[in-house]
Amino acid sequence: MDLPLIRKLQEFLQEDVGHGDVTTDILIPPGIKAKAVVKAKEEGVIAGIEEATLLLKNVGIEATPLKRDGEGVKEGEAIMELVGKARTILTIERFLLNLLSHMSGVATMTSIVVREAKSVSVDVRVAATRKTLPGLRLIQKRAVTIGGGDSHRFDLSDMILIKDNHIAIVGSVGKAIRLVKSKASFTQKVEVEVSTIKDALVAARSGADIIMLDNVSPNDVKEIVNTLKRKGLRDKVILEVSGRITVDNIAEYARLDIDVVSMGMLTHSVKALDLSLEITKVVKTSK
Amino acid sequence: MDLPLIRKLQEFLQEDVGHGDVTTDILIPPGIKAKAVVKAKEEGVIAGIEEATLLLKNVGIEATPLKRDGEGVKEGEAIMELVGKARTILTIERFLLNLLSHMSGVATMTSIVVREAKSVSVDVRVAATRKTLPGLRLIQKRAVTIGGGDSHRFDLSDMILIKDNHIAIVGSVGKAIRLVKSKASFTQKVEVEVSTIKDALVAARSGADIIMLDNVSPNDVKEIVNTLKRKGLRDKVILEVSGRITVDNIAEYARLDIDVVSMGMLTHSVKALDLSLEITKVVKTSK
Amino acid sequence: MDLPLIRKLQEFLQEDVGHGDVTTDILIPPGIKAKAVVKAKEEGVIAGIEEATLLLKNVGIEATPLKRDGEGVKEGEAIMELVGKARTILTIERFLLNLLSHMSGVATMTSIVVREAKSVSVDVRVAATRKTLPGLRLIQKRAVTIGGGDSHRFDLSDMILIKDNHIAIVGSVGKAIRLVKSKASFTQKVEVEVSTIKDALVAARSGADIIMLDNVSPNDVKEIVNTLKRKGLRDKVILEVSGRITVDNIAEYARLDIDVVSMGMLTHSVKALDLSLEITKVVKTSK
Amino acid sequence: MDLPLIRKLQEFLQEDVGHGDVTTDILIPPGIKAKAVVKAKEEGVIAGIEEATLLLKNVGIEATPLKRDGEGVKEGEAIMELVGKARTILTIERFLLNLLSHMSGVATMTSIVVREAKSVSVDVRVAATRKTLPGLRLIQKRAVTIGGGDSHRFDLSDMILIKDNHIAIVGSVGKAIRLVKSKASFTQKVEVEVSTIKDALVAARSGADIIMLDNVSPNDVKEIVNTLKRKGLRDKVILEVSGRITVDNIAEYARLDIDVVSMGMLTHSVKALDLSLEITKVVKTSK
Amino acid sequence: MDLPLIRKLQEFLQEDVGHGDVTTDILIPPGIKAKAVVKAKEEGVIAGIEEATLLLKNVGIEATPLKRDGEGVKEGEAIMELVGKARTILTIERFLLNLLSHMSGVATMTSIVVREAKSVSVDVRVAATRKTLPGLRLIQKRAVTIGGGDSHRFDLSDMILIKDNHIAIVGSVGKAIRLVKSKASFTQKVEVEVSTIKDALVAARSGADIIMLDNVSPNDVKEIVNTLKRKGLRDKVILEVSGRITVDNIAEYARLDIDVVSMGMLTHSVKALDLSLEITKVVKTSK
Amino acid sequence: MDLPLIRKLQEFLQEDVGHGDVTTDILIPPGIKAKAVVKAKEEGVIAGIEEATLLLKNVGIEATPLKRDGEGVKEGEAIMELVGKARTILTIERFLLNLLSHMSGVATMTSIVVREAKSVSVDVRVAATRKTLPGLRLIQKRAVTIGGGDSHRFDLSDMILIKDNHIAIVGSVGKAIRLVKSKASFTQKVEVEVSTIKDALVAARSGADIIMLDNVSPNDVKEIVNTLKRKGLRDKVILEVSGRITVDNIAEYARLDIDVVSMGMLTHSVKALDLSLEITKVVKTSK
Repeated sequence: MDLPLIRKLQEFLQEDVGHGDVTTDILIPPGIKAKAVVKAKEEGVIAGIEEATLLLKNVGIEATPLKRDGEGVKEGEAIMELVGKARTILTIERFLLNLLSHMSGVATMTSIVVREAKSVSVDVRVAATRKTLPGLRLIQKRAVTIGGGDSHRFDLSDMILIKDNHIAIVGSVGKAIRLVKSKASFTQKVEVEVSTIKDALVAARSGADIIMLDNVSPNDVKEIVNTLKRKGLRDKVILEVSGRITVDNIAEYARLDIDVVSMGMLTHSVKALDLSLEITKVVKTSK
Repeated sequence: MDLPLIRKLQEFLQEDVGHGDVTTDILIPPGIKAKAVVKAKEEGVIAGIEEATLLLKNVGIEATPLKRDGEGVKEGEAIMELVGKARTILTIERFLLNLLSHMSGVATMTSIVVREAKSVSVDVRVAATRKTLPGLRLIQKRAVTIGGGDSHRFDLSDMILIKDNHIAIVGSVGKAIRLVKSKASFTQKVEVEVSTIKDALVAARSGADIIMLDNVSPNDVKEIVNTLKRKGLRDKVILEVSGRITVDNIAEYARLDIDVVSMGMLTHSVKALDLSLEITKVVKTSK
Repeated sequence: MDLPLIRKLQEFLQEDVGHGDVTTDILIPPGIKAKAVVKAKEEGVIAGIEEATLLLKNVGIEATPLKRDGEGVKEGEAIMELVGKARTILTIERFLLNLLSHMSGVATMTSIVVREAKSVSVDVRVAATRKTLPGLRLIQKRAVTIGGGDSHRFDLSDMILIKDNHIAIVGSVGKAIRLVKSKASFTQKVEVEVSTIKDALVAARSGADIIMLDNVSPNDVKEIVNTLKRKGLRDKVILEVSGRITVDNIAEYARLDIDVVSMGMLTHSVKALDLSLEITKVVKTSK
Repeated sequence: MDLPLIRKLQEFLQEDVGHGDVTTDILIPPGIKAKAVVKAKEEGVIAGIEEATLLLKNVGIEATPLKRDGEGVKEGEAIMELVGKARTILTIERFLLNLLSHMSGVATMTSIVVREAKSVSVDVRVAATRKTLPGLRLIQKRAVTIGGGDSHRFDLSDMILIKDNHIAIVGSVGKAIRLVKSKASFTQKVEVEVSTIKDALVAARSGADIIMLDNVSPNDVKEIVNTLKRKGLRDKVILEVSGRITVDNIAEYARLDIDVVSMGMLTHSVKALDLSLEITKVVKTSK
Repeated sequence: MDLPLIRKLQEFLQEDVGHGDVTTDILIPPGIKAKAVVKAKEEGVIAGIEEATLLLKNVGIEATPLKRDGEGVKEGEAIMELVGKARTILTIERFLLNLLSHMSGVATMTSIVVREAKSVSVDVRVAATRKTLPGLRLIQKRAVTIGGGDSHRFDLSDMILIKDNHIAIVGSVGKAIRLVKSKASFTQKVEVEVSTIKDALVAARSGADIIMLDNVSPNDVKEIVNTLKRKGLRDKVILEVSGRITVDNIAEYARLDIDVVSMGMLTHSVKALDLSLEITKVVKTSK
Repeated sequence: MDLPLIRKLQEFLQEDVGHGDVTTDILIPPGIKAKAVVKAKEEGVIAGIEEATLLLKNVGIEATPLKRDGEGVKEGEAIMELVGKARTILTIERFLLNLLSHMSGVATMTSIVVREAKSVSVDVRVAATRKTLPGLRLIQKRAVTIGGGDSHRFDLSDMILIKDNHIAIVGSVGKAIRLVKSKASFTQKVEVEVSTIKDALVAARSGADIIMLDNVSPNDVKEIVNTLKRKGLRDKVILEVSGRITVDNIAEYARLDIDVVSMGMLTHSVKALDLSLEITKVVKTSK
């Protein structure tokens, strides 16, 4: 049931292979088998094991994961063992590493900010946004989840999220919420982006499920939360804080009794986790 | 003739749209037109103007670029103006910014390291690698070029590059080069990865077009270059240096009379350039 | 921004055209233009106007809708006028009618059951299910919405819906809800299918957003609703009733103070609305 | 050799799965295996066994058909047994049932009208039309065949069928037939739609292989058949009757010594056969 | 309505372009416009004008055909004029010529053998087979038709053709024909391949529409035709002759009162028609 | 790792199968197994064994190659044995033969001209061009390589090739080469098409890697080669000769101390190698 994933992976691999790996096809005879190991060259959290295993199976390589998705690795530790045709291993090496390095990079940073946030508030969630890289939504959202984060909505069709530009055209927060509540499916939550106490109150009273405070300072967030509490509206909504939040200032927000901190940088500015593949054994078969 | 590009862009957009932008479809009447502007929220080099323009034209939005690909921007500067259906602008906003931010992030970092390298060697080239993010090779390579870098080979089929794992199986650098020179098309250059003086000499004598010194220290690179010069082989090959090179140590390598420095981080660890879209005018038409 | 739709429509058309309309290509010279009108041959609610217009534009036919999506038609009324190449009109005729007839069939039946339900409860919603025909989810859900219904969730990824088979494996309703609430994204609603008072109470108390009473008799539904009210839990959840509901018994359920009635037959057993296309004018141009 | 089919089925499944079955992925551990059975909840003729088996094999579920395509089932009878990963069975359940219910619905109605027609004329065929639902031609035509009907032509490219709109533009039945006979491939049959005795005679004399009497009353059909017989032309053509024929009036036409009755309702207005899937056993494996 | 065609053409072009025309993109500034002409470098029959025009329109080049499909050209004659961006013309040049040269090669040879066959029998048809080149069926069949030939069946699904291997397994010609006539749709013709008088008689009596004499010598064909005539069966069937027929021996067969000669070489062994593209004018615009 | 290939092969097969092999599906029961052999009906060089094996495996047929790609065959020799479902073998027969016949046709002609060229110059290479048939680049280039030729560049993106039309717009050979050398990636070779001594000298001095002499007479080629030698430039470039070269005049060019002869006819005007498939054994299993 990995249909959406396997298609993505095949397209990705195809991109790197072009019309064939000319170097490997010339240099490596078809009959040679090899063993290889993927290793971490720095500390981090591994993600992409499931994707990599599926991919390798799909091209005829037997893969034995040595780490599970979400597990930490130290520098030098082995992550996965591969056995199969040397040709295939050499051809797939770079894409395999690109995939694992990127997903692990996302998971590693997510786990760092989650730890930071949870250190001041056990129940707070760290969420991704739609600021993902083109074509990588599926694997980036999975990596965020593996790193302990919340994927947030997947695309424009699976939740109502009223943003400032919508409100500007519709006229008011209240009108916008009433409109979506009458027209949208009852199965979808309604989130609305506000930046003032007044709009936050309107949102909570109009039945928004989630209120996003976008680019609001910690002080102002605090005031909004307190006002909502005083009016008995705090428990009726999920409070999400967003906008230029980093590993350095996340704790400042997380401690303000909010539910969710969402961060674009988890997916739009990823540092790859450094990994390498080593051939550990070569067997020339007679075939 | 933007065939490969337009397909990519449509798939990327589709990923974000899902089966429709439910919020916008409910809140924004079809007859409303809007003007919007894309702005830089930090300094950098812009890339993706051509891609963005093509995309916008494709969905019926009139786009006026205010910056050219490769041009620098300051914080607050406008990059592009959009005119068209408010619905479409709101639906496409996030993907448009994701695309421009990522490509501009690649171009910005490339231009920084190119400047750094050229400060010590006018003719040296800074090149990307195949360490690109899954599915993004085309746009990342374009962004590197826009930033002043060299795209290097596109995929496994458009050049011969003999790596350490190939040599380990074939037996020797010399044998590997002879093999590819007899079997590969005369239209393809032959590059070989070496790490010792001995192998560099063999490579140059066997007719390799490009020699890549991978993970070799500046001192050792220097010695290899000098040896090649003494033997009269330096001008017969293009020398490429690769492996853990960063903006901090690139000058150290660039000054060693080598031709190319290639860097994975240009594409595998990209910091997005911060951009935003603002609706500047809304017109309700009678339709 | 009709990306997902236009692709679907092109594939559908391609299915009917095969490698070309041999009859029309032989009989109708390319230079002939025609006018045509799509007419209703029976009373109903029209749906598919937007899709049909998009399709026709895409193949070069100028279409003038005479009815809007969701509008009622009487037998003999015209729905849409077409002007363009006679060849194209003849080739597209059957698919155009197949599309409009099916979508209008869905909308017509939806509008009938919605009227029936609303006659006893103004606020009740009639919703579709995932019992759609293979490949037709997008257009069937649109047609349900056009007919006044609620689309319900689109696919398995855009909402949590815990069904009896899930509960059987997990062990209990309470455990299942707690599990999904800790692991699923905060952006998704949680619905759970129950059939007893006991499970309904557990569901409401565990924080389910929606409770679906599946194949429960009107009497039992009544009892469950009353129990929830007595315990002060009725307003915390959305109540959905499902299972073998038809136009004949929908009022019986709708009057029980529930929020949603969902019906598979809206999409799995559709009677097409009878429509026809008539060529009204033929012009032979010199070209 | 199920190439066209397997692609269709994968696309259909993908439509329902979206980017993953979030509920099942959270609730059902990967190591759990299950047995399940598909049962009929009403009497009918089963179709789709071959498609379902292919699909299930494709997603790693072992399927044992208990009925063959075209076999009758009674309420409560089991149709197919499934063994495999519980996750996969739960994720695929709805699409599997949607597919089997729709195809069986088509086959059931086809078998009813075929029986009705054959009760008055052993050799008459009941055929489908191109009034199929968008994207479902392949599986609907198969279901008609399974139900004992004739698939008729598949698309616009695999037969010549001259319709009233063609004749209106060309000028006359005779001219149209002469034109196609000179230009179309000798491998394709030529059918022409007529509604008068005069045109039927012209068609038979001009060498049409099939004459379709569209929307002609039983009395007029009778007169046309008799006239063709008197002129010795009856055996030279296949006679097809079409237009608003239902299970109630099919016998009236079938007894008129015609060869084929074609009915759009077999595919455009299908009532699904009610089926369900029950999990019969759950095994938690250690993996 | 050129849906199947335009997809094919775009894929073909994409194959040649790869990820971009690097030479042209570097050398030719975007603002340059050009005029070009496609010329014949040898005598022949032109085919592909419609395809080429569609392709050129699709990439933004204005094309003016100077010859119609099926028209003869002499060496040096112009076929088509192009106006548009120099970049696009240079990038598309090779594929445009490959397409026109191949289709014209097919049409030219077809017209030669058709003329040869018609010189001895006015009514005989020359038909293609399924011996087409992979992926080129659509354009090769069109080219055969343009050259005056008959396309024969398009694929395995649009006609019944019983071949020797089928008969070997079924047991006899008669049994095979009876089987297909009872099971196949009444809309499809039934052709059977035979090589003896006996089987030809059985075929004609069993109601085959077309009899193919495969690899039968002219003398034996003559005898079979005469026998069929004597038995009064000749006019009941279409007679097709096939197998190693060339331009040299086609007349020998064509004069034997058969209906169709089919030839694999029309499509499996094509000599391209030599064409070239010349840039006739270059205009540098300011843009 | 046959990703690009297997997709191509599936599309090709799909083209021939349409929506199913109606004849075989009716006549051949699913339980019948068969053995078959592919035989050469004329002498030649076999190519496509790898592709055919991959395809057959993909559709469930066990294939045993009796010849390797590039091996010669005599008339009557067996090339490959097949074992599997009779239905599948019959359905795939024609496409299998079309593929092998075409690729073997390319390889056979290539081996003939290679032998002819090598008879006068051991080191000369015979290369293909981009004059391939639409959609067949991958398999035609493979067949040329199998026949002993050089594939030349694959598409417009994997090498710089400056043609006469580029030069006409840029202004001069020297300027064009300087431009591409400063802008193109250092990984790509630069080839330039010239026809005069003067331009050949400029090209060699400007650092072109390959000089193509297009449509230059043997005498003029000789003079250009001699001039390059006198100026000490001959060894700095690869010399390619192209334009209307055939098996009859190739030796005349090959003996002129040039490196490569490229020929469009290897791929644009291919004569298929005559092959056939024979069923050698049929087994009716009980299933």
